[in-house]
Amino acid sequence: MKTIQWSSNGKVRLIDQTRLPEAEIYLELDDYRQVAAAIKEMQVRGAPAIGVAAAYGVALGVLKLDTSHKNELVERLQEIGREIVATRPTAVNLSWAVERMLRVAKRQDTVPQIKEALLAEAQRMEAEDEEVNRRLGRYGASLIEDGSTILTHCNAGALATVAYGTALGIIRAAWEEGKRFQVYAAETRPRLQGMRLTAWELVREGIPVTIIADTMVGHFLRRGHIRCAIVGADRIAANGDVANKIGTYNIAVLAKENDIPFYVAAPTSTVDLDTPHGDLIPIEERPHQEVTHIGGLRIAPEGAKVANPAFDVTPHRYVTAIVTEGGIIRAPYQEGLRQVVGAALPFRGGG
Amino acid sequence: MKTIQWSSNGKVRLIDQTRLPEAEIYLELDDYRQVAAAIKEMQVRGAPAIGVAAAYGVALGVLKLDTSHKNELVERLQEIGREIVATRPTAVNLSWAVERMLRVAKRQDTVPQIKEALLAEAQRMEAEDEEVNRRLGRYGASLIEDGSTILTHCNAGALATVAYGTALGIIRAAWEEGKRFQVYAAETRPRLQGMRLTAWELVREGIPVTIIADTMVGHFLRRGHIRCAIVGADRIAANGDVANKIGTYNIAVLAKENDIPFYVAAPTSTVDLDTPHGDLIPIEERPHQEVTHIGGLRIAPEGAKVANPAFDVTPHRYVTAIVTEGGIIRAPYQEGLRQVVGAALPFRGGG
Repeated sequence: MKTIQWSSNGKVRLIDQTRLPEAEIYLELDDYRQVAAAIKEMQVRGAPAIGVAAAYGVALGVLKLDTSHKNELVERLQEIGREIVATRPTAVNLSWAVERMLRVAKRQDTVPQIKEALLAEAQRMEAEDEEVNRRLGRYGASLIEDGSTILTHCNAGALATVAYGTALGIIRAAWEEGKRFQVYAAETRPRLQGMRLTAWELVREGIPVTIIADTMVGHFLRRGHIRCAIVGADRIAANGDVANKIGTYNIAVLAKENDIPFYVAAPTSTVDLDTPHGDLIPIEERPHQEVTHIGGLRIAPEGAKVANPAFDVTPHRYVTAIVTEGGIIRAPYQEGLRQVVGAALPFRGGG
Repeated sequence: MKTIQWSSNGKVRLIDQTRLPEAEIYLELDDYRQVAAAIKEMQVRGAPAIGVAAAYGVALGVLKLDTSHKNELVERLQEIGREIVATRPTAVNLSWAVERMLRVAKRQDTVPQIKEALLAEAQRMEAEDEEVNRRLGRYGASLIEDGSTILTHCNAGALATVAYGTALGIIRAAWEEGKRFQVYAAETRPRLQGMRLTAWELVREGIPVTIIADTMVGHFLRRGHIRCAIVGADRIAANGDVANKIGTYNIAVLAKENDIPFYVAAPTSTVDLDTPHGDLIPIEERPHQEVTHIGGLRIAPEGAKVANPAFDVTPHRYVTAIVTEGGIIRAPYQEGLRQVVGAALPFRGGG
């Protein structure tokens, strides 16, 4: 299964993650506005996956432009990019992807060359993502103990990427190496990606998974059931602070309090060296219906206010290691992150 | 509103908490098995409320017995009591109430006297509960800062007691004193008592309340929004360890990590001096459908396992103070708890 791919009929094909696990439905999009809407509504979600979706969105938008002037096309590309980036402010992968597409466009001479290069670049990003995850998974597998129990949060799996996954990529790689273990998936309110997506992926993979409510993470961390926690990331600041799905910080603190390692798995495209520390990362506030309604059913009483920050920030002191496709990084993070980002991204700074 | 009361037609009247906030429906029960079922299904829940419900259950069961032999009646009372206590193993208030009823029965001479005394005792426990909460609330109100934000978990309100509440009793008392503040209610998966019950109570009271998912507690504790956390308890061990609704331990650790006071509010009937520390408290495992289904709708994929411990244990080192009707107790808890329990319960040890 691929979460996102370019289909032979010239469309972007996405699995609709809002319908899982009940139904496995694929969307075919041929307009960048549809892609932006799919990102905003979280039909596609997960930092690496929305990065690739954004690249395809830019390509789709530019392919339809009716101009022979390079400058006009580049301007329009930037507008399209801003529209896509605005859908979700926390994950840095959106702007990472759009900037990468912009650099590719600027290097070409003619409009037809730009169009061809942009589509090729988006397809390259699709292919790279899976390869990056497999590399990251192989590094991270060394952290998994045979016979252990692993806690994960939200979905940092195949569904959060093009394929294979980041946190779940490590879990897949360890399983492929023959290690046996079980996974506790925190359900991850309000949208329940842990219950709906991570459990679904692991059941398909044949990896034993137990769903727990988010209220239970401390209980199981304290009772000694869990040997490590692994999560993904939506943005990693230059100092190693991690923005990830709301509830991640709870787990990081509870893991540290119980002397359990807390690992973050993310491709270098999620590292934002331009953001010095985590409290500078914008936190998306999502619609309150995500909290007050489940399956169309209102659960909350009228008259109460609701908060719905979609992410939190885990200060780097709670992070035992960050696993990237360039290797495992440990504190102090500043220098390690700079090195893997420099090694991984020939496009960076190539403006 | 009273959560539980003896009605003029000789029945126990309960508000059905599984129907809130959508519908305000009262149940009238005249059989102890109905009372046991209502406790098990959580139509009545909250340690103090189920204590009083258990007392009424015992009274209802005994009133219907057709015997003139005191010994036979006492034996049957013990059987009924065991049946009721078995419904929910964590809260100590069930066995506290049944033992109190048993002592009352043993002190009488004849069957008619026993029947009369048991009903009077259950009614006394109903009346005492509200008075105990009001006293506890007045002590605890001193801990609430004007203009602050308070975090609470689950429902330790009027609905968890006969009336007024424990954690929410403190909040009500502070509000009645003229202090102004807002409350963050953690929704409390899996059964969402924070969203469904606490928010409903506070909206009715005119106290500003914001519902947050359990994943968000760390985020808001870290961001400095919250000045204290107050929760109830289902059982407090002799050393001050606290069993309470699953997720309480998460909040206690996250509060301590962020230097925010964590208060526990409970009547002395919740203190179990016979249990030396918290890890000896039995933790109820509830049906998995509470996690996998919401409003009758299955959300979890097939093939995943589920855990559903209903309570967790917070070691006393995370507890800033325990507020009882006998005053505010701080560490070391052992001696303070012994004193308030001794002062509050003339029946204890009176066999």
